[in-house]
Amino acid sequence: MPPLNLVEYERLAEAALDPQTFGYFAGGAGDEQTLADNIAAFGRWVLRPRMLVDVGAASPASTLLGGPISMPVLVAPTAFLRLAHPDGEGGVARAAAAAGTIYCLSTLATTTPADLARASPGGRRWFQLYCYRDRGITRSLVQQARETGFEAILLTVDMPFSGRRERDLRSGFVIPGEVEVPSFTSASSGRGSATLAEMVALLDPTLTWRDLEDLVAEAGLPVVVKGILGAEDARLAVASGAEAVAVSNHGGRQLDGVLASLDALPEVVEAVCGAVPVILDGGVRRGTDVVKALALGAQAVMVGRPIVWGLAAQGEPGVAYVLALLHEEVRLALALLGCVAPAQVSRRHVVRRADD
Amino acid sequence: MPPLNLVEYERLAEAALDPQTFGYFAGGAGDEQTLADNIAAFGRWVLRPRMLVDVGAASPASTLLGGPISMPVLVAPTAFLRLAHPDGEGGVARAAAAAGTIYCLSTLATTTPADLARASPGGRRWFQLYCYRDRGITRSLVQQARETGFEAILLTVDMPFSGRRERDLRSGFVIPGEVEVPSFTSASSGRGSATLAEMVALLDPTLTWRDLEDLVAEAGLPVVVKGILGAEDARLAVASGAEAVAVSNHGGRQLDGVLASLDALPEVVEAVCGAVPVILDGGVRRGTDVVKALALGAQAVMVGRPIVWGLAAQGEPGVAYVLALLHEEVRLALALLGCVAPAQVSRRHVVRRADD
Amino acid sequence: MPPLNLVEYERLAEAALDPQTFGYFAGGAGDEQTLADNIAAFGRWVLRPRMLVDVGAASPASTLLGGPISMPVLVAPTAFLRLAHPDGEGGVARAAAAAGTIYCLSTLATTTPADLARASPGGRRWFQLYCYRDRGITRSLVQQARETGFEAILLTVDMPFSGRRERDLRSGFVIPGEVEVPSFTSASSGRGSATLAEMVALLDPTLTWRDLEDLVAEAGLPVVVKGILGAEDARLAVASGAEAVAVSNHGGRQLDGVLASLDALPEVVEAVCGAVPVILDGGVRRGTDVVKALALGAQAVMVGRPIVWGLAAQGEPGVAYVLALLHEEVRLALALLGCVAPAQVSRRHVVRRADD
Amino acid sequence: MPPLNLVEYERLAEAALDPQTFGYFAGGAGDEQTLADNIAAFGRWVLRPRMLVDVGAASPASTLLGGPISMPVLVAPTAFLRLAHPDGEGGVARAAAAAGTIYCLSTLATTTPADLARASPGGRRWFQLYCYRDRGITRSLVQQARETGFEAILLTVDMPFSGRRERDLRSGFVIPGEVEVPSFTSASSGRGSATLAEMVALLDPTLTWRDLEDLVAEAGLPVVVKGILGAEDARLAVASGAEAVAVSNHGGRQLDGVLASLDALPEVVEAVCGAVPVILDGGVRRGTDVVKALALGAQAVMVGRPIVWGLAAQGEPGVAYVLALLHEEVRLALALLGCVAPAQVSRRHVVRRADD
Repeated sequence: MPPLNLVEYERLAEAALDPQTFGYFAGGAGDEQTLADNIAAFGRWVLRPRMLVDVGAASPASTLLGGPISMPVLVAPTAFLRLAHPDGEGGVARAAAAAGTIYCLSTLATTTPADLARASPGGRRWFQLYCYRDRGITRSLVQQARETGFEAILLTVDMPFSGRRERDLRSGFVIPGEVEVPSFTSASSGRGSATLAEMVALLDPTLTWRDLEDLVAEAGLPVVVKGILGAEDARLAVASGAEAVAVSNHGGRQLDGVLASLDALPEVVEAVCGAVPVILDGGVRRGTDVVKALALGAQAVMVGRPIVWGLAAQGEPGVAYVLALLHEEVRLALALLGCVAPAQVSRRHVVRRADD
Repeated sequence: MPPLNLVEYERLAEAALDPQTFGYFAGGAGDEQTLADNIAAFGRWVLRPRMLVDVGAASPASTLLGGPISMPVLVAPTAFLRLAHPDGEGGVARAAAAAGTIYCLSTLATTTPADLARASPGGRRWFQLYCYRDRGITRSLVQQARETGFEAILLTVDMPFSGRRERDLRSGFVIPGEVEVPSFTSASSGRGSATLAEMVALLDPTLTWRDLEDLVAEAGLPVVVKGILGAEDARLAVASGAEAVAVSNHGGRQLDGVLASLDALPEVVEAVCGAVPVILDGGVRRGTDVVKALALGAQAVMVGRPIVWGLAAQGEPGVAYVLALLHEEVRLALALLGCVAPAQVSRRHVVRRADD
Repeated sequence: MPPLNLVEYERLAEAALDPQTFGYFAGGAGDEQTLADNIAAFGRWVLRPRMLVDVGAASPASTLLGGPISMPVLVAPTAFLRLAHPDGEGGVARAAAAAGTIYCLSTLATTTPADLARASPGGRRWFQLYCYRDRGITRSLVQQARETGFEAILLTVDMPFSGRRERDLRSGFVIPGEVEVPSFTSASSGRGSATLAEMVALLDPTLTWRDLEDLVAEAGLPVVVKGILGAEDARLAVASGAEAVAVSNHGGRQLDGVLASLDALPEVVEAVCGAVPVILDGGVRRGTDVVKALALGAQAVMVGRPIVWGLAAQGEPGVAYVLALLHEEVRLALALLGCVAPAQVSRRHVVRRADD
Repeated sequence: MPPLNLVEYERLAEAALDPQTFGYFAGGAGDEQTLADNIAAFGRWVLRPRMLVDVGAASPASTLLGGPISMPVLVAPTAFLRLAHPDGEGGVARAAAAAGTIYCLSTLATTTPADLARASPGGRRWFQLYCYRDRGITRSLVQQARETGFEAILLTVDMPFSGRRERDLRSGFVIPGEVEVPSFTSASSGRGSATLAEMVALLDPTLTWRDLEDLVAEAGLPVVVKGILGAEDARLAVASGAEAVAVSNHGGRQLDGVLASLDALPEVVEAVCGAVPVILDGGVRRGTDVVKALALGAQAVMVGRPIVWGLAAQGEPGVAYVLALLHEEVRLALALLGCVAPAQVSRRHVVRRADD
């Protein structure tokens, strides 16, 4: 029987991967409180559906940054996908394209932007950017992305240093030397195996909003800022030229104990005040999670780990199935909420859960 | 020893039924959060009793839609009761009649309204209505109910599509072809086994409040609207001619993550403002649950699964015993609350539970 | 090693008693939510101690109804103590007298007030009253108590009917015919074994505040009203002549789902407004529980089950030890709170616990 | 593999110590609610990081009472360290000195201030003071501390009597006669083994704020008051001449059920109003705990048990490793919070956790 939901895919992936690799993708920083809280946060809101709306034609189709998406769900950037399955980034990108949504390629992908574009020429693609201390590499990555059809630069701002991921320290997880990570290879001189922290050490921890302004000026593509958890930074991102912001705590993998993504969403939405779309990243596992995020003001959400679980379990077809499950869950949630389209979901459709 | 309470009946039913069928009746949608929350919601309120009231003659007898009921507890509509026990809908209806309360027959019953009326001629009966895409079937069902002594039409408005019930998907639950579901047989052409989703696909997902107005105009019976979870819809129901509204989330079987029924009750009561009675459906397992709902403004409650458990465990006598247990629990709760009758229970008799 | 605290005594008692009898004393009504909540309520408050107060001579000695008590802890009335241990009511009364506090004899004791007075002539004693339908018995009990040195009548007002105690129904618990319950014997004609519900059926469920006024007028002793859970009833008790009120839900044995005693205390204290002392009954297991109740406005607390556990485990010496443990715990709690005496404990010494 | 965090050190220590000794260091008073709540309190706040701050040079270095500390983490005073490991107080003091932070020597140490100064001549040291009934001993201890390079007197004010530590009563824990506790030996006449309560009985339970004033006048060193849990006492401490206050409930070892240290911090910070630094003691296990305390107004925190676990597991090197782990965790937490130094952490960096 095919998996019934995204959580079942996590179990399949755990069975398919070696424990080190599963731990790398599944784990978070420190005590993994934020990792758990990202998911728990959705349980703190309940839906408030409307009845007797004609929902025969309800559809999750939406738009983002001027283009269509089949549902308000993007594929989050994730590093090292070839560790999960040989289909790697290309397989995920093709599944996302086939599903009609946006794929985000990580700077720490096991492929270059150009190769990914060749592997998955169709579909909408964004390029996730980490800034190396060596700015030449960064400039080259942006240029390559722009020239091979990526539609936006997704700048991740929450990793000046790597979070302390104790699962990886405990398991001795390293990215094996035989798994190519092109941007890292460019930044280091001749590499073997490396830990994530060793890779992150090549990134620039001195970035400021000024650097964002420069990127906006030079990228030639819209810039989306990922990793915002508060109103001040949301306003700074907009003022610096970001065309969208993604509320995110890096899946609980950077600073343990920060706000759950969903808990940070309302203040960011209020601060941004409609100037740019807000994307929610972190903890989405159900179609009802998606509509809760919409009700709290998100234009769309990103899913990360569930995509990895689909890839690990069944390669590209697993990713396709995960996206199909989500599409159907979002469609049904919209219809049962009394909404024909994502744009109809409003703050009135959700209420704070009564405390136990 | 006979069961001491309704929860013990659930255990008996689980032993009596095959796992698929038990899962069908017991389960909810998605992660079953709403299923659990319907029950947990009662724990979020505590009773505030009054002392030294003469309660020697305390009684749960009440009235609803102009007629008497022995207690403010109705038998909720439930589909496919013959799957639980050969006594089926007729057995439940007779037990309800004998107990002095109202029985609600489901559109998806394993009997027709006319046959049910023959099987249980006495007692008060309501007919629960789903609207098929083929409106002729719907009109015929309403006419049959009206002509065979049903006192009201209970229109369920929360099922434009079937909720995603993963227990059933996992177990492969189908309604066997040999179990007759007359309304479905009329709506489909020659059937074998069918899933609930296949049955629901014949229902009309495009209904609007205008259709309710039409039903009110044409039914020739009072119309009660079941499935309301918010103030706006409660007001629309009253404005459209409903003579009562039932706060319900379909037992947690439609959209997982919505408000617990009891949590939605206060805003519906406030919105309706006394214009029509409000009925609470979902999570009632104890006499104290009943008086909590009364205190929050309900005129009566519905019980669904506990009736199924009584039926599954012991047939019609089991249902009678469940209703007798509830009657005694409600009587005792009223008396210990310092109330002689349901109408004396007021908002002052309940307070929000102090948080842990 | 002697037990270190009252909870350890419960384990000893469970080992010493047959399961039916232990279940009778330990159990509550319905789902036993109130039974548990009485204890949990203390955890919802935390203490706010003061430092550098000279507490070298801190002492729990206090007063109540014009007389001294060695600590603000009374022995609650409990029925059928001879079921717990042959030392019975007399043993408990002697231990309470030796400890310097008040013993409350139950109407459903296994001894008469006169015999108890002979068994424990010293110490302060109150007589707990249930009103039988046969008012002659009630009058006779009050007269007997008055004439044998009881200082007050403690009228329990929360038992017009017996709560539904499912542990007893499950275990088939009855009070054996050979255990004499003198008041019940007077009220019934020739008895054998009887359930508690059968005994309670002889009590008068039609009592009103008018009957309290009559009792106050006729008793010739101060009347304390036990079983108050709200402001209205507290005011009525004072207006009817009660000289103290005891906030109580009958140890969670009557209506399950009511307010925890401690949660009801603040509103009763506010309503009574200093006119009479307020006693807290329910859930006290620690010296810190006692000072929390004092901080919320109680003049004293009652302990019931812990006394039974001491009695069951070790007879009269066990009760003495339980009271000694509590005395030392209260003394230490006062001292570490920066208070020299119970009267120094104020509302500033306690705060609502921060939510998890 | 070396331990990854402080909690892992607790497991190592449990394996290294006999159960009585581990229980002594690990345990708290009564039901150990405060012991647990000290840790849980940190989970009730979440961090609110800022992005795109140049944190390349983020460092936890700070100052306290006019001198530098390598991080805002002090080593709390702990009694009887030689019970944990032969390296004892000297080993801990040397590790603290090497790590660049302050070591607090307990009055109930297994060494004298003078001997400790010889064992660890470098580094900053404070002397924790209990006042014996025999004030001569107290005066002598203060003089010795002053003359051997201790920089401050840390007066503990929350132990007029010993808390009721049931783990020790259960295990029969005593401080063996062969373990020298010099101050106790001075205060008693010829000792063998002794319980903590026997030792505490020699302390003076009649101390008042007047005694603090006298100490401030006579000590010749700054006086820090440890054991404050409320605004009134914080103001009194400042008014009496304290140069810093430490919010503490003695690690949950004195009065069980009091405020968690972190929960008391905000009111103390507000009351002190910047007049003196506030130190937070209790429950710190993570670098993120440290920054949460800073955000709520603490200038620094103390860690107690984790130091004991490091000592018990590996002697002085274990303490060094615990301090190194904390230093790195604080550095990383600061950087990921967008702060370059402890002084940049503000109330805006933390929010109350959304309730579940």
